[in-house]
This record gives sequence, structure tokens and C-alpha cells, in this order.
Amino acid sequence: MKIKNILLVSPMFRELQALIEKDIPDKTFRFMPEEELSQEDLSWADALVSFNLKAEYDYSSVKWVHSLGAGVDRFLHKKDWNQEILLTRTICSFGQRIAEYCLSYILKDLQLHDRFKEQQQQKNWVQSTPKLITEQKVLVYGTGEIGQTIAKVFSGLGVDVYGVSLSGKEKAGFKEVMTVNSHFSVLKEMNYVINTLPLTERTEKLFDGAIFKQLSNAGFINVGRGASIDEEALLLALNDNTVSFAVLDVFDQEPLPKNNPLWDHPRVQITPHISAVTTPSEGAACFLETLKNIDENRPLKNIVDTKKGY
Amino acid sequence: MKIKNILLVSPMFRELQALIEKDIPDKTFRFMPEEELSQEDLSWADALVSFNLKAEYDYSSVKWVHSLGAGVDRFLHKKDWNQEILLTRTICSFGQRIAEYCLSYILKDLQLHDRFKEQQQQKNWVQSTPKLITEQKVLVYGTGEIGQTIAKVFSGLGVDVYGVSLSGKEKAGFKEVMTVNSHFSVLKEMNYVINTLPLTERTEKLFDGAIFKQLSNAGFINVGRGASIDEEALLLALNDNTVSFAVLDVFDQEPLPKNNPLWDHPRVQITPHISAVTTPSEGAACFLETLKNIDENRPLKNIVDTKKGY
Repeated sequence: MKIKNILLVSPMFRELQALIEKDIPDKTFRFMPEEELSQEDLSWADALVSFNLKAEYDYSSVKWVHSLGAGVDRFLHKKDWNQEILLTRTICSFGQRIAEYCLSYILKDLQLHDRFKEQQQQKNWVQSTPKLITEQKVLVYGTGEIGQTIAKVFSGLGVDVYGVSLSGKEKAGFKEVMTVNSHFSVLKEMNYVINTLPLTERTEKLFDGAIFKQLSNAGFINVGRGASIDEEALLLALNDNTVSFAVLDVFDQEPLPKNNPLWDHPRVQITPHISAVTTPSEGAACFLETLKNIDENRPLKNIVDTKKGY
Repeated sequence: MKIKNILLVSPMFRELQALIEKDIPDKTFRFMPEEELSQEDLSWADALVSFNLKAEYDYSSVKWVHSLGAGVDRFLHKKDWNQEILLTRTICSFGQRIAEYCLSYILKDLQLHDRFKEQQQQKNWVQSTPKLITEQKVLVYGTGEIGQTIAKVFSGLGVDVYGVSLSGKEKAGFKEVMTVNSHFSVLKEMNYVINTLPLTERTEKLFDGAIFKQLSNAGFINVGRGASIDEEALLLALNDNTVSFAVLDVFDQEPLPKNNPLWDHPRVQITPHISAVTTPSEGAACFLETLKNIDENRPLKNIVDTKKGY
């Protein structure tokens, strides 16, 4: 594939321009924010680098689209993808970032941060014993790049990590990988459950009462996609204590609307979709690596299977 | 050494009795809380298992003292130890417990827990990028059992861990170990500083303005002993931002007196000496292992050098 004209559309286009342009003299670039994009730019471009596509434009002259995020549902979910266009995505350090995010909230729970903070406010000296992470069982939905890095980080700390995937295929770092259909019986043993799954037809509203009701006072962390969660079922599970707390980084609607009851729930922790932020330097590095691989006709490890949706 | 009569004095004597007595038919035990201890018990005992000694008693007929804690300053610091009495201490999972405690507070800082919690209270959706732990430098004072476990856990996560010890001898998990006298020049590069040192004459008030002033916006965690810290110098350092925050689990006086200003400082987090709690089952297991080694004349890995004080 010959790529000459590259169009980069992003709120952080200036930072990316500074990092990218100087390195590639043989390409022509246009960098812009989304609101300045026109059909003329798209007709000019061989490649588009962006977080999403705008429905009103014709992309048919673009040969390659590179997603600046890890999730590509904004390109594929409930959309018709032109199979002639190559789609790649940013992976880089997302796995490590998400693993550290999850680890921080699990240790916060085990180390009783909230209890000791409350006691400090009352100048109250009462001992309680934190629990060891080495004695916990963690279930990770999704055994791709991100799930595998979580498994590697947690199993390296001595945690038993179980996985759920479509295929149930064994992967490094997991004690056992189960299929979506075969994993229900282990749910009650799990201390923490982490969702990393991409949004597809099969994962939309996957986390409903059927899963939540099987849990037994487990912590639930969502770093996948908000639309994979049935929010009402989660709130019921929190009130029934099958879910002891929820840490949510992603939502069906973002920013999360002010009237959403999740904001106020005392056992829900909300973060504004930051568990796997693309920093300009990582976004640039991943794009440049992909471009180099395309130019040199090498295999792409971040290519998206547009039929599967991830 | 022949041990027959064993006296165990502890607030958790009942739990320890249930775990210990059934396993050793050839010993005679007395289990009691501190307030019931008499000189008659001490004259009867070959061995004493406890957290500390009471000054008013004569311990000279005891051959072996086993500390239920990891720290033995309550036996040795500013006291004359009878060199004929063997002193051992509990080590077990302390290193792992303390490592997880430290990791939880460092990740809390890197993942901006407080900021996102505050935003949630205001239903405010503003993105900030957490920092990766893989990019941090951590300095650990003390390279014994506990310091080494911290180094192992953190370096396993990709952190650069530096050590400070009396000898400066290289130890596994540390990128570099320096002596107390030679480490000043690296202080300004450190993101987090952890004290695990025992309390001895050489570590009393070791952390004073001379160390704190060299730091550059570093997080400080004390899981060693409170008396190693000059509290006034720490408060000054917090106000000068050479220390960005302090997490303190140990204090010169415990429980920390209500009028101590540390309770109220917005960037001080206080926990009630829980980073390395001896649980009854671990305390019992470590004692039983030590007893077995003594009975079988095997080397003791938890013996205390009573002249060094640790």
C-alpha cells in the first residue's frame, strides 16, 4: 500500500504535529481539529488518523484509517465498514496503564484506605488488618493485549487470575481461561471482576443481572466499554451486595450525564475515561511504527478484524 | 537449648492458644494477657513469647524470648539486654504486607484517586492522565527482609528501586544500594521514599531536615519506626513541598496523641500501625517454626543480633 497524503484529525493535533512531522520528510501531512475537517481534506488523504469518523463525509478515497484509541467501536459498532479500508488501532502502553489503574483500586479496597481516612478525620486509632492481594482471585473478561497485560501484572504479584473470552483459549498469565458460556460457576469465588472487552454485538449489555447475581460481594471494575453494562442491573447488584463496589471508567454516554444515579452511589467510583489515555508521545510513536510497517510491507500487530469488531 | 515451659503473653493469647497448643504435646504452656503476668510465671518459664518486656520483672531464668512483632526496639532500644538470652522475632509475611501497603499508597497518588473522588462529588468530568509506576524511582531505607521484599515487588513491576543501608552492600531487587553517608546526591531524583529501618541509636531521628530538604516533591512513607522521624522537620518539608505527601503507619507515641498536628495535615495520611500486623495464624506459624528449629538445633533465620539491635 502506498501512503503519501496523511490527514490527522484530533483535539491534540498540535502536540502530535510537533512529534510526527519532523520524522517523515517523504510524506505530506495535514493536521487539524475535528471542527475544521472538510470533504476536500478527506478526498485528498490516503490515510486518516483520528479517534472516530463523522457520518456525514465520504471516506472512500482513504486507504488506511488509524485509530488514536484502543477501542474501535466508534468506527465499527452499528456501522458498515468498507472492507477495502485497512483499520489499525493504538495499543502501546494501554495494557500497562489499565493494569495499574485496576491494581490501584483493588489495593485501595484491600488496604482499607477509606476506613483509615475516616478514622483520621475523627482522630480515631483503631486497628484493622488489610488483606493480602496474594490471597485474591481476579476474573478478567477479555484475554487480548489488555487482558493479558493485566494477567501478567497481577499473576506476577501472586494473584490467581482467571479469564473469560469467546474462544476460552489458554493465554499466558491466566490460571484458566473460560468461555462466556462456561464461566458462570466460578463467579461466586471471585473477589474482583474486571471487564476489558471491546464493544461488539456480543458484548453489548453482557453484564446484566445474570452475571451480577452470581457474584458474592465482589468488586467490579469496568475499563472496557460502558455499553457492555446494564446500569440498572449493576445498581441492583450494589444494593444486594453481590457487587461490593464498582469502579467505572467508561460509560454508555460520556461525559456521564449529571442526572445519572451512578454519580451519587456511595460505593461507585467514577473516573472520566482516563484508564488508558493516549498521550501525544505514545499516540505518535504507535502511529509512526504502524506507518513504517505499512511502508515496508511488514505484518501489522495492531490490525483490526473489522468483521469481529476488534 | 532445652525448652519445656513456654509462657505466651499477648492480647491475642486465646487465638494463639487455639492455634499452638494442640500441635505440641511435649511442652507445657501458659497463655495469658499482659495484665495477668506475674514474677512466678517468669521464673517458671524457659521461653517467653510476647510483644515486649515489662521493666519491673526479673527475666533471668528465661533462656529464649520470641518477639511476636518484627520490630524488637521494645526489647533492645535504650535497654540492657542480657546476652545469654536468645532473641528471635516474627518475620513471615511482613515484607509482602508492607510492600502491598506501600504500593497501594503510591498507586493512589499516581492514579489521582483524590482528584477523581473530588470531581465525582461535584459531578465534574475532567480528564487528567495518571502516571505510570514503571516510570518512577523509589528509594527504600533498609535492605533487610522487608526492604528486599519491597524491592522485589516494585522492581517486578518495572520500578527503579534504590536502597540505603549501613553497609551499602548490593542486594537483589535493588538497582543500587548506597550507604547512609553516600546517598544524599540522589535524593532529589526520587519520586517516593520509604523508610523500613529498625529503631536503633543510629536511626533515631535519622529523617530530619538534612534529608527532607534534599527531596524534590517526593512522597514519603514510614513503615519503620516513628522515632526515626523528626516530626517538626517533616511538617516543614510538607509545607515547603520538598515532601509532597506523607503516609505514616508508625509514630513515636502510639496511639498518636489527639493533639499531634499530623492528624490534621491535609497531605498526611495516618494509619494505626497496621502495615505489618501479626495475624494469629502467622504469629503462631512463625513461633512454631522457630521452636522446631531450636528443638532440632537448626540454624535460625529470624535470630536478632542484640548488639546491632535488629
